[in-house]
Amino acid sequence: MTKTVKVHIFLKPGVLDVQGKAVEGALNGLGWPGVANARVGKLIEFDFDGEGDPQAEVKRMCETLLANTVIESYRIEIG
Amino acid sequence: MTKTVKVHIFLKPGVLDVQGKAVEGALNGLGWPGVANARVGKLIEFDFDGEGDPQAEVKRMCETLLANTVIESYRIEIG
Repeated sequence: MTKTVKVHIFLKPGVLDVQGKAVEGALNGLGWPGVANARVGKLIEFDFDGEGDPQAEVKRMCETLLANTVIESYRIEIG
Repeated sequence: MTKTVKVHIFLKPGVLDVQGKAVEGALNGLGWPGVANARVGKLIEFDFDGEGDPQAEVKRMCETLLANTVIESYRIEIG
């Protein structure tokens, strides 16, 4: 059965997120001084149809290709 | 009160998502032929503290800076 998979990928805490800093600075400058701790991540969505446990398979995709686990963490949602 | 805001940004349907196609091709080639319709989007998270309705303010941020509404759609989650 086809499952809809969402993978959220973020830089690990402690890794400098320059894109997040840029967004934060821009929003602050545009009149929203109350914006803080901005982080920019990736969201990958796809349909998956395959044998085996989807959760385990998608975890393997993340470790192999989707996330750089040295600096990035990921969260998997299967719906 | 500080709110945690998440903004999901995706290319609109019909706009060619080359990054998504690349992810799909790579996963297909790595032994997951059942992966289809991959889309890669952005996920922006930040803390927001400000006057006015947070939903309306974040919508204005998206229209002003975060999303290119010609080719991108966005979804706002405030928690």
